[in-house]
Amino acid sequence: MTANTLVNSKLVCVALNDKAQLAALEGAFNEAPYKKPPTQPVLYYKPRNTWSVNGAEIEWAKDFDGVDVPAMAVGASLGVVIGKEICRVSAEDALDYVVGYTLVSDFSLPEESYYRPDIKGKCLDGSAPVGPTIVPADQISNPDALRVTLSVNGHLRSNFELSGMQRGVAELISIISHIMTLQPGEMIAVGFAGDRVAVAKGDRVDAQIEGVGTLTNTLGGA
Amino acid sequence: MTANTLVNSKLVCVALNDKAQLAALEGAFNEAPYKKPPTQPVLYYKPRNTWSVNGAEIEWAKDFDGVDVPAMAVGASLGVVIGKEICRVSAEDALDYVVGYTLVSDFSLPEESYYRPDIKGKCLDGSAPVGPTIVPADQISNPDALRVTLSVNGHLRSNFELSGMQRGVAELISIISHIMTLQPGEMIAVGFAGDRVAVAKGDRVDAQIEGVGTLTNTLGGA
Repeated sequence: MTANTLVNSKLVCVALNDKAQLAALEGAFNEAPYKKPPTQPVLYYKPRNTWSVNGAEIEWAKDFDGVDVPAMAVGASLGVVIGKEICRVSAEDALDYVVGYTLVSDFSLPEESYYRPDIKGKCLDGSAPVGPTIVPADQISNPDALRVTLSVNGHLRSNFELSGMQRGVAELISIISHIMTLQPGEMIAVGFAGDRVAVAKGDRVDAQIEGVGTLTNTLGGA
Repeated sequence: MTANTLVNSKLVCVALNDKAQLAALEGAFNEAPYKKPPTQPVLYYKPRNTWSVNGAEIEWAKDFDGVDVPAMAVGASLGVVIGKEICRVSAEDALDYVVGYTLVSDFSLPEESYYRPDIKGKCLDGSAPVGPTIVPADQISNPDALRVTLSVNGHLRSNFELSGMQRGVAELISIISHIMTLQPGEMIAVGFAGDRVAVAKGDRVDAQIEGVGTLTNTLGGA
């Protein structure tokens, strides 16, 4: 199942990294239990069973009762590939540890809340295709200047300028490297547009970043 | 770093599986944002950088500023080792997929809340020793009848009867296998006593289950 995936050891995703989304949620964050917006990046994992590839069909999710779920959603992110072991690096030095860039699509159940680890919604088998290739870091002069688009059946559904991220690539690498040691080949999906895109059975999803490539997957179950 | 660990592909932990803890938290759960207790198991991962072994020294954690954290805590759980690929199994059949049992200690920062994925607190390097060995499943007639003790410097600090778990081993395997496919060698830490045990630099921690073994680790930084 995990053979031939570009990711082979760890895929960490950053949630809530869209400034516009954070602004929209400000009211909710000021309620219990936190009573303030997140002060650190909110991270989640896409574990081994989720790893997939460009061109793969994404299985339509089933609920606990075995019945197909009514809705799925997708977001796309720049994927940052770590090239050297990295522990407690400064933001200034962080990009020196990046070997390349790719795309990560994250298929999930629609989010009901931003609390509790959403393992059920985020860890569907095969829900994290990565690719199509890893573009060498020296071909991307400023990752924060990229733009991630997401199209469904050829229609543009999301257009996210990474300059709209609450935290940029170097700052995120620095923070995460202060939480855990990162190893070569590990990946960080640095941020998704706040609005996930609804998808239906049989849809074709293209995630694209100019200069990085196009990651194409179709939804199964049709 | 991860060579020779008993866990080699995935370690899923179950939080909030102590009936006494759930009862104590009932008031908090009935407040926003949920206004009810969890209806499904709350899961978290211990990723690759956390995997460690019996006898290892556990690194004392540092905060973002590089200064040692003031406090760490530990819990211990029965570790259930999957023997065959498993997808959407019933609770009745779930134990047929277990190849063996072991112990998992989970060192962490003290928990401040039960919301938001606590990647910083739960994913410290080397914070999840597993061992000392994997005991074949046929040597454990009823895993839910086991008792997990945790001693610090030879003094008993926690004594958790697994009959006090909100969900037993077979039910948990069934539920998790409906969320994600599990592969041979993957592990589930099925439940921890609600009260984590505070530890200090230099402490020796023994997690023990009769018939499964004793997992011993010491805290560094002393």
